Amino acid sequence: MQLGMIGLGRMGANMVRRLINGGHECVVFDLSPEAVKELVKEKAIGAVSMADLVEKLAKPRVVWLMVPAAVVDKTIAGLLPLLDPDDILIDGGNSHYVDDIRRAKELSAKRIHYVDVGTSGGVWGLERGYCMMIGGEPKVVQHLDPIFACLAPGRGNDIPRTPGRDEIGSTAEQGYLHCGSNGGGHFVKMVHNGIEYGLMAAYAEGLGVLRDANIGKQEHVVDAETTPLRDPEHYQYDFNLRDIAEVWRRGSVIASWLLDLTAAALVEDADLKQFSGRVSDSGEGRWTIKAAIDEAVPVPVLSTALYQRFSSRGEADYQDRLLSAMRLQFGGHLEKPEK
Amino acid sequence: MQLGMIGLGRMGANMVRRLINGGHECVVFDLSPEAVKELVKEKAIGAVSMADLVEKLAKPRVVWLMVPAAVVDKTIAGLLPLLDPDDILIDGGNSHYVDDIRRAKELSAKRIHYVDVGTSGGVWGLERGYCMMIGGEPKVVQHLDPIFACLAPGRGNDIPRTPGRDEIGSTAEQGYLHCGSNGGGHFVKMVHNGIEYGLMAAYAEGLGVLRDANIGKQEHVVDAETTPLRDPEHYQYDFNLRDIAEVWRRGSVIASWLLDLTAAALVEDADLKQFSGRVSDSGEGRWTIKAAIDEAVPVPVLSTALYQRFSSRGEADYQDRLLSAMRLQFGGHLEKPEK
Amino acid sequence: MQLGMIGLGRMGANMVRRLINGGHECVVFDLSPEAVKELVKEKAIGAVSMADLVEKLAKPRVVWLMVPAAVVDKTIAGLLPLLDPDDILIDGGNSHYVDDIRRAKELSAKRIHYVDVGTSGGVWGLERGYCMMIGGEPKVVQHLDPIFACLAPGRGNDIPRTPGRDEIGSTAEQGYLHCGSNGGGHFVKMVHNGIEYGLMAAYAEGLGVLRDANIGKQEHVVDAETTPLRDPEHYQYDFNLRDIAEVWRRGSVIASWLLDLTAAALVEDADLKQFSGRVSDSGEGRWTIKAAIDEAVPVPVLSTALYQRFSSRGEADYQDRLLSAMRLQFGGHLEKPEK
Amino acid sequence: MQLGMIGLGRMGANMVRRLINGGHECVVFDLSPEAVKELVKEKAIGAVSMADLVEKLAKPRVVWLMVPAAVVDKTIAGLLPLLDPDDILIDGGNSHYVDDIRRAKELSAKRIHYVDVGTSGGVWGLERGYCMMIGGEPKVVQHLDPIFACLAPGRGNDIPRTPGRDEIGSTAEQGYLHCGSNGGGHFVKMVHNGIEYGLMAAYAEGLGVLRDANIGKQEHVVDAETTPLRDPEHYQYDFNLRDIAEVWRRGSVIASWLLDLTAAALVEDADLKQFSGRVSDSGEGRWTIKAAIDEAVPVPVLSTALYQRFSSRGEADYQDRLLSAMRLQFGGHLEKPEK
Repeated sequence: MQLGMIGLGRMGANMVRRLINGGHECVVFDLSPEAVKELVKEKAIGAVSMADLVEKLAKPRVVWLMVPAAVVDKTIAGLLPLLDPDDILIDGGNSHYVDDIRRAKELSAKRIHYVDVGTSGGVWGLERGYCMMIGGEPKVVQHLDPIFACLAPGRGNDIPRTPGRDEIGSTAEQGYLHCGSNGGGHFVKMVHNGIEYGLMAAYAEGLGVLRDANIGKQEHVVDAETTPLRDPEHYQYDFNLRDIAEVWRRGSVIASWLLDLTAAALVEDADLKQFSGRVSDSGEGRWTIKAAIDEAVPVPVLSTALYQRFSSRGEADYQDRLLSAMRLQFGGHLEKPEK
Repeated sequence: MQLGMIGLGRMGANMVRRLINGGHECVVFDLSPEAVKELVKEKAIGAVSMADLVEKLAKPRVVWLMVPAAVVDKTIAGLLPLLDPDDILIDGGNSHYVDDIRRAKELSAKRIHYVDVGTSGGVWGLERGYCMMIGGEPKVVQHLDPIFACLAPGRGNDIPRTPGRDEIGSTAEQGYLHCGSNGGGHFVKMVHNGIEYGLMAAYAEGLGVLRDANIGKQEHVVDAETTPLRDPEHYQYDFNLRDIAEVWRRGSVIASWLLDLTAAALVEDADLKQFSGRVSDSGEGRWTIKAAIDEAVPVPVLSTALYQRFSSRGEADYQDRLLSAMRLQFGGHLEKPEK
Repeated sequence: MQLGMIGLGRMGANMVRRLINGGHECVVFDLSPEAVKELVKEKAIGAVSMADLVEKLAKPRVVWLMVPAAVVDKTIAGLLPLLDPDDILIDGGNSHYVDDIRRAKELSAKRIHYVDVGTSGGVWGLERGYCMMIGGEPKVVQHLDPIFACLAPGRGNDIPRTPGRDEIGSTAEQGYLHCGSNGGGHFVKMVHNGIEYGLMAAYAEGLGVLRDANIGKQEHVVDAETTPLRDPEHYQYDFNLRDIAEVWRRGSVIASWLLDLTAAALVEDADLKQFSGRVSDSGEGRWTIKAAIDEAVPVPVLSTALYQRFSSRGEADYQDRLLSAMRLQFGGHLEKPEK
Repeated sequence: MQLGMIGLGRMGANMVRRLINGGHECVVFDLSPEAVKELVKEKAIGAVSMADLVEKLAKPRVVWLMVPAAVVDKTIAGLLPLLDPDDILIDGGNSHYVDDIRRAKELSAKRIHYVDVGTSGGVWGLERGYCMMIGGEPKVVQHLDPIFACLAPGRGNDIPRTPGRDEIGSTAEQGYLHCGSNGGGHFVKMVHNGIEYGLMAAYAEGLGVLRDANIGKQEHVVDAETTPLRDPEHYQYDFNLRDIAEVWRRGSVIASWLLDLTAAALVEDADLKQFSGRVSDSGEGRWTIKAAIDEAVPVPVLSTALYQRFSSRGEADYQDRLLSAMRLQFGGHLEKPEK
């Protein structure tokens, strides 16, 4: 079927490629004419403006937005006068689901349908397909099924079927799912990312413990402030993290795609020297915690993983200085210089 | 090659089966004659005692212990007078790596070699193979290579090769790895389990947030004690956890074997009514935290995951009562009855 | 000066008492005529309705609301038509500071001044005075100074002066503080409560560790699932928590008012049998976490303390069942029954 | 009574001063002759060696060690040949309670009595007295009562009595307590410090949230990676932390001695510029977590507080780099440079 794509960053451009490969027709627009030109070479139909894009689409139109969350509302505002009743607007970016609820309500007043799609798969989506979590009206989502089926990974030959699944009908096995009413897609994607933070932190902590398992080989100072390592002979291991990540990929309980990627990163450089360790967070992790708090669901692991990212960017520095100040006050403890 | 197996619980018995299928000869013993009889039917050589088992093995002998961690030392004590120099003793259970260091030292005085093997794979090992993390002397581990190669999963056709791996020689790609000197195998397995706890908790927390996303549909009381849910219209989703776990298995960043199992469990019963929620912990998670503390490596996610298990068994009850007592003291707050 | 008080629960009624004792005139109203009657006996001027209360106050009026957060907006809506420009409305309850910002804006359109006062002190305020954190316009807060000075604890003879404080002019030493513009009072009170949760949890956890220091005296089962306690001889202490809380009150680094209250609670009953351990949270702890997340400030301790309260009310049960379900899937582990 | 003090650092020297002021006789020794000379000026009896100190004490002797935990065993080894049966050896430092259990056992073979004393009060002890938690044989501890009574803070005029305390006989109200058998004193002190870490972190986190409450005034970049601050108008507060810490000291639920010290530190410099934020930990916090794990008592707050100290010293750096590496792998996310 026909689809207009606005926003041709890596995600948007690769989705267009996958759709064209799947036999769909794509009209594309981006603020960068270069980005449009690139995809026209690959059989997309280029547009020079949003108005042009809308014009080139048959009614009822399907327009997919793949732009930064911060500019979705502005983009919709520009698009709205150009659209007609029964047109469908899809937000495939990282919107907060609360914005979806609001937008769907606003757009429904003009009889325009809104669909929110949380998308996982990152830079690998072109090759592997995109895992999609969808929110919106059932009929509208149903209408878009060919699009989702094309973008999704499909069942996959190398993924064993979940026992009992054959009796359950659902697109979930194809890698896309209508999760619920508007906002539901981004809600599920939000939690997906919250979990992602937790998983990543678990691997990072564990590998950190392995990395320092040779601490017994180091000299330690003796003073009143520091407890000596009781049993240095228990920490004499120089573990090869690269090979350990690899061995866990086969047959272990903690095998995962994130572990695959970790193993790949450690092959490139086990010391990870190219990284400074300032870890960004992109919003979903934060929203997950806020939702959990509204629901009174305890999420200590997911929260801790988020906070670790804050701390990695220096956001705990004032707190740390406060702790040092208190220690000086009650115990006369001076800070120790860096080793 | 030839191997004696002591301990024919599910793990030990299935390892024997996999070894026999791989062409190795197994002499087996268990305190339960039934367990021995069962495996003799499957071409194992039965022994009626540890002495009998030792007798039936050619020198230098290879004896693999697959018994509860709490009885390993007792078993070794019984076995020791029966063994000769150059014999090899393997502990494939869940020993604390510190015990391995001690045992290896004690046994080396009698020129008996000790090898510690951390094994992951659980009930799936017979079919998928066992992921093995090995500690011991290089020559001895090398000598046992045929055993490990047979028990391990092997490279696997459906597991994509880590980029850059072809230039690196290691058995890690086969699913087993000599990690380091004695204790190193169980150390790596210990951390593996620590990570496992963290991963499991991340999924559980996230699914918990999804499950209660319909909280806005519930009536809430208005009193001075409880904050009202500000935006009930944001929590109107009845998510299908069974299908969400399934959709994440394809193309998403959080795909993993634990997610596969979660999806399977949710197909059986999404409400998980057969479980009470008392979650055991088997030692490795605890030891991981202790090692991290010795190393001064922060592990908040792994710790939190462990503590959640403690709490699930009621271990926070006194603390909770203390909090209620303090609240009564300073604010006159009475506990609210269960809903 | 003169003040109208709406809401005569324990907090409101005691504030009126303290104000009357300090020579101020109080017009009081509550939905319960009994509550009004009670205070009229103690020299308050009773009102039979909000209109009556407003009528009995001289312009510009000062009206203090001490009602549950959930009904503040409704109360203001009822009061608004009765007020005149330059009147001052004080919310002394537990409002979310975001509501203060909104209300101040709405009321300013009618030239009515809004002041938000976060109040700590609980049931002890009548005797000890109320610690007050205030948000609003400087002139308005200044105008109300006699009220705040009367309600506050004052400097206190038994509280040592902070070194260097004599050169700094501030009401902070009297126990009340104009923290900033509207919402600032409740913001600071919100964080105060967030800290309170963290402090309480720290004491509870520590006392929990002391309480179970006799675990080495208990019998432990030996099975493959549970790690045995390595050194039972290290856990043979039957500590007297009541006396330990008391000894820490003198000269120790962790002396505090919360510790005083804990010591008192433990004198009443060291086993805390009257409590079930379902711990409420009243909003401020949640809002603190949300604010921290907006600010990207890591707050793992405050979050964990909040989540512990959620868990104490059974909110982690589904997660726990999920963990048990995963363990059954990968390891065939059955849940152990309660001891 | 008479007491020998070995170790005249700040703690040991001030204890001697307090004892001499209380009418006790002190024989003192330190590796630094200067330290001995200083106290001799203040009426202590100087010793030139441990042998000299032992010689100058009447039997049965009382020797108090106030030396770094790491050298206690060495000091005892040197002292042991000089002592006689019925002599009493006190370790007043920061020993691990497990060492106390071992030492008491070893010394009892020579009929020498061992007493472990956990001491809180830091640099303030000379003036305020030392809070002491004591482990040892009842008769021996009883014999030392005059020493403890002199060093302790006493009941204190400005500390309100815990309701119901008058019917309970205990030295706890004087600020010292016989907690249990050997190791019990240091066990309770260990947990005291564990709690201390938690309290400190709670204040630091809360003040951190207040400090960044002006984040809405800052410019924020718009990109696909970062979620925009939804409501910058909610974060426009420039809070005065110095005055807020002060106001909480009076009448609030979170008043404490640590808060007093925080208020003092913020008067000196609210920006804490003299501190780098590298926070030491001295052992007790770590041991508390290990004990909790042995007991299966959940201590997420205390653990988190400890880990924050590790992180403040850069111990999470490798983990952070791993997270960045994973993000690059799955999403092509590049690290953002420091602001």
